[in-house]
Formats: sequence, C-alpha cells, structure tokens
Amino acid sequence: MTVLVLTSEVDVTADMVVMHLNASGVPVVRLDPADLTGGVALSGEYVHGAFRGHLSTAGRLVSLSGLRSIWMRRPGTPATRGPQPSAWLTEESSQALYGMLRGVEVRWMNHPDAAGRARHKPWQLRLAQRSGLPVPATLITTFPQAAREFAERFPDLVVKPVSGAHPQDPPRAVPTSRVEPNADFSAVAFGPTLLQRRIVKRADIRLTVVGDQLLAARKEIAPDAAPDEVDVRFAASVRPWSPAEVPPRVAEAVLVYLREAELAYGAFDFAEDRDGTWWFLECNQSGQFGFVEVDTGQPIARTIAEWLGRPAGRHDMINGRGSKAA
Amino acid sequence: MTVLVLTSEVDVTADMVVMHLNASGVPVVRLDPADLTGGVALSGEYVHGAFRGHLSTAGRLVSLSGLRSIWMRRPGTPATRGPQPSAWLTEESSQALYGMLRGVEVRWMNHPDAAGRARHKPWQLRLAQRSGLPVPATLITTFPQAAREFAERFPDLVVKPVSGAHPQDPPRAVPTSRVEPNADFSAVAFGPTLLQRRIVKRADIRLTVVGDQLLAARKEIAPDAAPDEVDVRFAASVRPWSPAEVPPRVAEAVLVYLREAELAYGAFDFAEDRDGTWWFLECNQSGQFGFVEVDTGQPIARTIAEWLGRPAGRHDMINGRGSKAA
Repeated sequence: MTVLVLTSEVDVTADMVVMHLNASGVPVVRLDPADLTGGVALSGEYVHGAFRGHLSTAGRLVSLSGLRSIWMRRPGTPATRGPQPSAWLTEESSQALYGMLRGVEVRWMNHPDAAGRARHKPWQLRLAQRSGLPVPATLITTFPQAAREFAERFPDLVVKPVSGAHPQDPPRAVPTSRVEPNADFSAVAFGPTLLQRRIVKRADIRLTVVGDQLLAARKEIAPDAAPDEVDVRFAASVRPWSPAEVPPRVAEAVLVYLREAELAYGAFDFAEDRDGTWWFLECNQSGQFGFVEVDTGQPIARTIAEWLGRPAGRHDMINGRGSKAA
Repeated sequence: MTVLVLTSEVDVTADMVVMHLNASGVPVVRLDPADLTGGVALSGEYVHGAFRGHLSTAGRLVSLSGLRSIWMRRPGTPATRGPQPSAWLTEESSQALYGMLRGVEVRWMNHPDAAGRARHKPWQLRLAQRSGLPVPATLITTFPQAAREFAERFPDLVVKPVSGAHPQDPPRAVPTSRVEPNADFSAVAFGPTLLQRRIVKRADIRLTVVGDQLLAARKEIAPDAAPDEVDVRFAASVRPWSPAEVPPRVAEAVLVYLREAELAYGAFDFAEDRDGTWWFLECNQSGQFGFVEVDTGQPIARTIAEWLGRPAGRHDMINGRGSKAA
C-alpha cells in the first residue's frame, strides 16, 4: 500500500517526511499535479459497477486501490507545466485527478474539501468557540457603527485580514496591527474588517497536531518587546521556540476542533496571556512546521510519516466524511 | 425565520421560487454577494463564546440566527459590483460572508462544500455506481493505449468533456459526440479524455429531486433522429418534455446518491434505452428546471419553495454535515 504525496518539485518539508517513509520501507509516490499531462498520466475506468484507476509518474504506475493515504502537501495547479497549458486543460485535469481521488477509499491529510472549509477564519472562530477554546472577542464587519461600539467595549484592539495573505504575486502577509479605539472606522464600509481584542501575551504558542499527536512549541516574548509588536511573524525577537506542555483542557478542545473540521493535520496559533491562558488565534490546516522542528527537535516530520504510513483502520477518515481523524 | 436566497439580480428561476415563498407568507431576503460592500453589508461578533451575525440589504437587517434555510441559487462573485472591486476585496468579502454562513446552523440548498464536490464528474460516476444506478462503461484517461483497448471492448463510443462547460467568456457547452472505434487516440496524451459507451436511447430523462420529492420528465427521441445526435442540448427535435413515472429502484438509488452527496437538490440526466433501463449520465447540483416546469407543468419551483420554507427539523442537514437531506 502506497502513500501518495502531492506537492511541488522543490519542497524540503516534503523531503523530510518522504525520507522517514523511505526509512521505514513504506512505498511512496510523489508527484506534482502541475506535471499533468507531461510527466504525469492518469486513467480511470468505470465498468460493470467497479472502478479501476491508475496514476503514472517517472515510469512508475500506481493503482489507486493500492493507496493507503494521500498527503496534500503543496500541490501545483494541475497541468500548468505541460507543453500547452490553458485554463481549459487545467480544469479538465483538475476534475479528472481530484474527481477520481475523491472516489477512492483512502485516508487524506487533509481532504481538499475539509481543507477548503478550514481556511475560512470566521468559521474557525465559531468552531473554536464551540470546541471549548478561549477566543478573544472578535468583530468582522462592514458596519462603521458596529466597529465604533466594539472599540468602546474593547479599547485595546488589533486589526488583521479576514482571509490571510494578500493575493498579490508573490502573496504578501498582512501584519496584525494595533488600532486606536478612537480611530475613524468609516472606511470599514468599504471592506470587511476583522477587529479583535488584543491579548497582552507573555508567549506565542504553536501547537502542531498530527492525528491525535500533539506537539506544542512556545516562544516567550522578549521583556523589552514593544507593545505594538503583536505579530510574531514580523517581530524583531530572535528567541527560539522550545517544547511546551499542552494544558489538558486545550488538548481535549483541539482534538474536538480537528474532528469536527475533519482534519488530520492542523497548526494552531495561540497567544498565552499573563495568567497562562492559551487564546485561540487561528488553525492553519497547511501550516509549516519546519521552523518548529529545527528549534525544538520535536519529531513532527516523523509523526506525519507515521500517520501517512500506518495501515488503514476502521476509524479512518474516508473521503473526508468519517468522524475520526485520529 | 427567514429564507436567504443568494443569487444574481436577474434570475427568473429565483423569481418563481420567491413568488411561492411570498404567497405562503415565509419571509425572504434575497441578495447578491456581488453587491458587497455596496448595497449589501455584513457584521459578525464573536464574544464570550457566542456568535451574533447580521446581513443587511436594501434597508433590511436580518439576523443570521433567524435564518431557516439558504438557497445558493446563482450568487455572483463577492464584491465585484462594489465601487472599487479588487481580487483582495473579493477574497476578504468571500471569506467573511461564507465563513460566517458556514458557522450558522441552517439548512442549505445546496451547501457550497457539497456543491463543489458534486461537480466532479469522475466522483459522480463512482457514487452513481455505489448508489445502485446503471452507469455506462466509461474511461477517463491520458493513456492512448488505454483508450485504444477501451474502444476495442466498446466500439460504439461517445466522447465528452470531463468538467462540463468550456471556461471561455461566456462559457461554451461542449457537445457530447460519437467517436469511431478506430480513431487515432494518440492526442489523449495531451489532456484527460472521457470516453463512454453510447447508450442507444429511446428517450432522455431529466429527474429533478428536491429533498425527497422526485419529479421526472421524459422526452422521446424522434423516430427519424440521426444516430449521431446524442446530445439533447443540441438536438434538432422540438418534442416537449412530459411527466414520467420513476422506476422504484431508480427512486431508491437517487435518494441514496443525494444523501451520500449531502445535496438537497439534484437534477439527474439519464438515457433510457430500448429495454427501458435508465442509464446515469450526470447529476447537476445546480441544474436548471424552468424548461421542465414549462413543458410538464410539474410544480418544481413550488416544491423548492416548500423545502426552503418548512421549519427546521432534527433530521436537517446542518453545515453540510448531516446525513439526511430529505
């Protein structure tokens, strides 16, 4: 039974996981959907009530019924590197590849439907609330009056994008920034704005969850950090990440979150306040983990390889529809 | 409790359904996400573990907790008709609107995640097989040799696109066409090709399913129709659609299909062969029904209005995750 890794050609994170799979003797096929229909070919036959499908890449042929898991790591857009790319060819290739894969009984990390849903920040906040995670008071609005009233109730505020990175080329991360409570909120009418009560934090937490394995890392805020430095991605601090214990209630809640989200992998960001409470900021279903593994020595790549490589069980997530992601 | 209809401004099909809802006194809010952030505004607040959300359009404010159902009829791309459209504003608005709506407990026709999955033709074919519907032998391939072998086994073939309409502007439907078994299949290597055994049909069937209500229509093939005329959309025939009885086994199978697909609405196309067997061709989760209603007099719009308007029950599809779409 083979692990299918869908990712781009240059991906050191995938390299790490594939190395572990190779070391444990699990067959791996790695391909980039961008190479359809150049180096990658596919075929699926629906005859007499049965389905038989195959993929081939670099001279290897793999049967879709022989897959044990699929890792949607960082796949390219289908058929964009072929000899004659076009929007039509991309659409046909995408439907053919993912349409077939969706019909195969296999474990996904993560299923594309679950992944697509999990990218919605407002949905994340609601699910985090329901899962029992503390969520900082948040407003997403195009009503200036609602923004003004929220700023009166929660004067210490940050603003951040609703959707994540700005879709320019290359994508640009928009930093989380503080906003004055008496700011002019009239421009809110021109685009949805996410305002959130600022958590006065003593540490940033990155909690990586692989199946039911929790790997938490913590980075303390430098005592001399400027209070306006709220976004860890843009902070001047060079303190390393170190391994952290997960409070039992948080552990329980993130597993509820991922089960409800039908995700096998999630990278949670929390802000730890001065009381030690972990406040949910977001869960990135495709979050990077290399920087945490390098700093902490936590075996995240190996844990992913073990999840991908283990034999299928009856509690597996089939087609993103099962209830157990563990 | 209000029905939210997401569709473009000009949509006579939506008009028909809204008319029925109005007649039965069910509150309706109709809006086009394209009008964010011009005529449409939104706000959602996540405070103390709870969520409160609102939409406003044309001076009306509706609470998201007061929605009974959402009809994703034909919504425009978010924020494309506002004063200053941009890819960034569309992304932010789409995440804000659909992220909030995904967190609301409400019945969808159809949930966007289920709808996205249901568009994959290869997935449709597999699900139809599993649901017990007869599916004509089909091959989707980029292997010329697989195409040649398939053509030897099934010499009477049609070819059709994997993904549906060609994505030019305006989109162009690609007709299903016959293909000679001794054709040169080498070009298959350049793009996934769908080959299907041709069903020698005596009628086309359109089966519209709304919840658990089945409304079937049948159009006989003209006795003098050319055998190359396989695509009803391009046929010269002007025979009208007439109501048809659904064979019990088909009725059972399509309800299994829609339950598994988590769809509340589906328009199935079948080919009826000379033995009376209905062969599954496709299920369009957003299929038009106006032409069937006009020809047959079947109350499809009213049935949709009744589904949207009825009070929530415990078997409802919540967030596309429930198992009963009926």
